[in-house]
Amino acid sequence: MAPSGLLTDLYELNMAASYLQRGMGGEATFSLFVRQLPPTRGFLVAAGLEPCLDFLEGFGLSEEELAYLGRELGFEDPVLDALGALRFGGEVWAVPEGRVVYANEPLLEITAPIAAAQLVEPYLLNQITFQTTIASKAARCVVAAAGRDVVDFSLRRTQGLDAALAAARCSAIVGFAATSNVEAARRYGLQPSGTMAHSYIESFASEKEAFRTFARDFPGRTTFLVDTYDTLNGLRTAIEVIGELGLSDNLAIRLDSGDLGELSRAARTLLDDAGLQHVRIFASGGLDEVELDRLVRSGAPIDAFGVGTRMGVSADAPSLDSAYKLVEYDGRPMLKLSEAKATEPGRKQVFRGRGEDVVGLRDEPLPEDREPLLVPVMAEGRRTGPPKTLETARTLFRVDLEHVPEEARRIEDPVAPNPRNSDALEHLSEQATADARRRAGLR
Amino acid sequence: MAPSGLLTDLYELNMAASYLQRGMGGEATFSLFVRQLPPTRGFLVAAGLEPCLDFLEGFGLSEEELAYLGRELGFEDPVLDALGALRFGGEVWAVPEGRVVYANEPLLEITAPIAAAQLVEPYLLNQITFQTTIASKAARCVVAAAGRDVVDFSLRRTQGLDAALAAARCSAIVGFAATSNVEAARRYGLQPSGTMAHSYIESFASEKEAFRTFARDFPGRTTFLVDTYDTLNGLRTAIEVIGELGLSDNLAIRLDSGDLGELSRAARTLLDDAGLQHVRIFASGGLDEVELDRLVRSGAPIDAFGVGTRMGVSADAPSLDSAYKLVEYDGRPMLKLSEAKATEPGRKQVFRGRGEDVVGLRDEPLPEDREPLLVPVMAEGRRTGPPKTLETARTLFRVDLEHVPEEARRIEDPVAPNPRNSDALEHLSEQATADARRRAGLR
Repeated sequence: MAPSGLLTDLYELNMAASYLQRGMGGEATFSLFVRQLPPTRGFLVAAGLEPCLDFLEGFGLSEEELAYLGRELGFEDPVLDALGALRFGGEVWAVPEGRVVYANEPLLEITAPIAAAQLVEPYLLNQITFQTTIASKAARCVVAAAGRDVVDFSLRRTQGLDAALAAARCSAIVGFAATSNVEAARRYGLQPSGTMAHSYIESFASEKEAFRTFARDFPGRTTFLVDTYDTLNGLRTAIEVIGELGLSDNLAIRLDSGDLGELSRAARTLLDDAGLQHVRIFASGGLDEVELDRLVRSGAPIDAFGVGTRMGVSADAPSLDSAYKLVEYDGRPMLKLSEAKATEPGRKQVFRGRGEDVVGLRDEPLPEDREPLLVPVMAEGRRTGPPKTLETARTLFRVDLEHVPEEARRIEDPVAPNPRNSDALEHLSEQATADARRRAGLR
Repeated sequence: MAPSGLLTDLYELNMAASYLQRGMGGEATFSLFVRQLPPTRGFLVAAGLEPCLDFLEGFGLSEEELAYLGRELGFEDPVLDALGALRFGGEVWAVPEGRVVYANEPLLEITAPIAAAQLVEPYLLNQITFQTTIASKAARCVVAAAGRDVVDFSLRRTQGLDAALAAARCSAIVGFAATSNVEAARRYGLQPSGTMAHSYIESFASEKEAFRTFARDFPGRTTFLVDTYDTLNGLRTAIEVIGELGLSDNLAIRLDSGDLGELSRAARTLLDDAGLQHVRIFASGGLDEVELDRLVRSGAPIDAFGVGTRMGVSADAPSLDSAYKLVEYDGRPMLKLSEAKATEPGRKQVFRGRGEDVVGLRDEPLPEDREPLLVPVMAEGRRTGPPKTLETARTLFRVDLEHVPEEARRIEDPVAPNPRNSDALEHLSEQATADARRRAGLR
C-alpha cells in the first residue's frame, strides 16, 4: 500500500496550492544534505534512498485525502483538482545507500515542477535523515567490534516498528551479522539470531532443567543465557549440561549483565578448563560502540556482541542537522542568506578523490582521478534501474570504509573531513548572493 | 492490515516453540514498567496503549510467516501447527494513556498462556516505551510554554513515519495545540498548522511579492515567514503588505532563526508601533523545552512555539529503561535476582494518594483515599470497552499534571518522586527471593 500523500507538512500544501493556483510550474531543484555532523560522528553512511524512490513512484493524493483538504482546510477547485492530478514525474540524483558521506555533501537532489518537489520534502527528509542516522551509528559499532560479530537487538526499544525494520536493514548495510527481529530477517533476507530470555529460565523448576530442555529443543543452535540468578554459577550449570547431553555443535553462552569484561574472562577460563574452547561467548546489555571499543581494547574474550537500544535510536545523536534546500528555480541558482543557515546554490556533484572530497556543480567536468558520488536514480518519476540490493549497499560500505581517514573512524573524539567547494561553486555562490540580496531589497 | 506476528525477537519464538512442544500452557503475568527515569525527567506520561490493544486483538501468524519459520528456521510440526493456532486470548490491565506515572510503576500487565505472552513482548515494549518517551518529552514542552501554544513540527526528522504520526498523537495528548503533519491531523482529528517555507519566498521575484501572493491565497490564515533574507527587513515588508492589502484577521509573523528573544522584542515593538498589536509572533527553529523555558522566563513576547526534531526524537533521552518481566507463572510469584536488574514479583497495582504513590499487589484492598492507576482493559483477548479517545487522554493528563510536585515539573534538574512498595509486596518479594535462590541452586 502506498504511503499517504498527506504525510507532509501543511505549509507544503499551502505552497503547492499557491504555485498551482497561478500556474507556477517552473522546475525546482532541491538538495538534501547534512549541514554539520554531530560531535561524535566522523563520517556518515547514506541510507534511506530506496524507500524514498518507492514513495516518489507511488506519490499521489487519494479521493479521501482530497476531500479532507476541501472539508477541513478550505482548499477549493481548481487547486484541489490540480493537487489531485499531481504525480511525481521528476528526476532524482542521489548517493547510493551504503556510501560514506560528509557534511554539506548532497545525499539526494530532486528536480521537478516546484509544487511536487515541495510536497515530498518531509517524507524524503524523514527517511534519509533517520536511516542515515542509524546506519552511521551502527557503522561505529562495526568499527568498534573490530571484526567480531555484531547483532541487532533493537526491536523492543526503537522509536516505533518501522524504525525497528529500518534499524535492522541499516545495520545490515554496515555489516551487522544478524538481527533478532524475525520480520526484518524475513523481509530483507537477513540472518535471524536469538536464544532464550530470563523468563524462560524462571519458568522451569531449576536453571539446569531449563538449559537441558532448551538444548534438546534447539540442538544445532544452543546458546545458554547464564545470568538469570548468578552468572558464574549459571555458567557451571551450562557446562554440566553440555557434558551431560554430549553437545558439541554451535554452542555459546550469553552474558547479559554485570561487568562483561571480567565475566567474559572468568567464563573463558572456566570453559577452556572444561575443554570447551569451541563454545563462543556472546555479550549484550546496554552496549554501544563506546562500550564495544572499551571491551575490545581491554582484550575481553567476547566473540559476538548484541547491540540494542543505543544503536537503534542512535542514543547520543538521535537525529542529524539535515536540510532540504531550494538550490535552483526556473533555471536560476538560488540560496538562502540567513547567516547561520546559509546554503550554496546550484545542482551539485561530489567529486571524491584520494583523501579529499570536493563539492562542485553537477555539470562541471569530472576532475581526473575523481569519482562522482551522486548518480541518476530516477527520471520522469521512474527508477532508472531495479532497486539496489542490500548486498550492493553492504559492498559499497565495506569498500568506502577502508578509505575513511583514521581520525574519522575512531570512536573517541572523531574528526570528520570537511569537503571543500570547487571554484565553480564558489563563483556561482557569489553571483547568487548578489542576486538574492537584490531580491530581498538589501543593498 | 494487522501488523506481522513476526515483529518479534527470535528468542521469543524459540521459547514459545519450546513451551508449546511440551504443552507448557501455564498462565504467565508479565509486567511492563520503567526501571529508572532519565535525569532530565521528573515524571512520565503513559502512552502507546491503544496500538498495543489493536495488535493483541489481531495477533496471529500468517501462512506465509509460518512457511518462513519452517523453511529458514527449522521449526516443524506439531510446534509449527501450534504456533499457527496461537491467538492472544489473555487479560490486560494498564494505566490509561495520558496518566502521569513514575519509575517502577507497571504501565501494563498482561496475563496469558506463557507462549503468547512471551511472543508479544517486543511489540508491547516498543510501543509503550517509544510513545511514553515522546509524550513525556512533549509534556515538558507544554509545561515550559506556560500557557502559550505549542505546535508539533517534528514530521521531517522523527525516526520514521509512524514515529511522526505517533509524535503528533502523543504531543496532542499532553496539550499541543496543533501539528504541521497533515496526515496525523486527518487521522487523529487534530488541528493542522502551517504557513510557508523559505523556498516559497525565494521562488518569487521579491520577498514582498511572495508575501502579497500568499496573503491573497490564504486571507484568513496568513503567517509571514520573515527571516529568509534579513529578519527585521522582512518584518517591515510584512507590515507594508498588511497595510497595503488591508489584512486584519488571524495574522502572524514567524521567526525561524537568530536570537528569538531579541528578535521577538524588536518585532513586537515594530508591530505595535505600526498599530498591529493583534499580529501574533510565532517562533521556531531547533526549539525544545529548555529553550522554551528560557524564552518564557526572559519575557520574550512570543505567542506560540513550533517544536520539531528535539521533541519528536526526545533528543536528550530518546529511550527509556523499560522492562517486561515475568512476575507470576502458573500461580507462583516470580522474580529475577541479578543485582542491577532485580525485579519485584506478583501482579501489581499502583495506589495513588495525595503526594505519594504506593506500588502494591493487585489483590490488596484499596487503601482509603487512594485511587488505583491500573484498570482492566482487555479480557479473553478483547477490549473491555471501546478504544479511549484522544480527548479522554488529554483530560487525564491535564488533571494529573496539576498534582505533579513542583520539583518534578521543573525543567532544570527535575526530581522524580519514588513510589514506595506496600508491605504486602515487600513480604511477597522476600518469599519469592528465597524461592528463586532455591531454584538457582544457591544457598
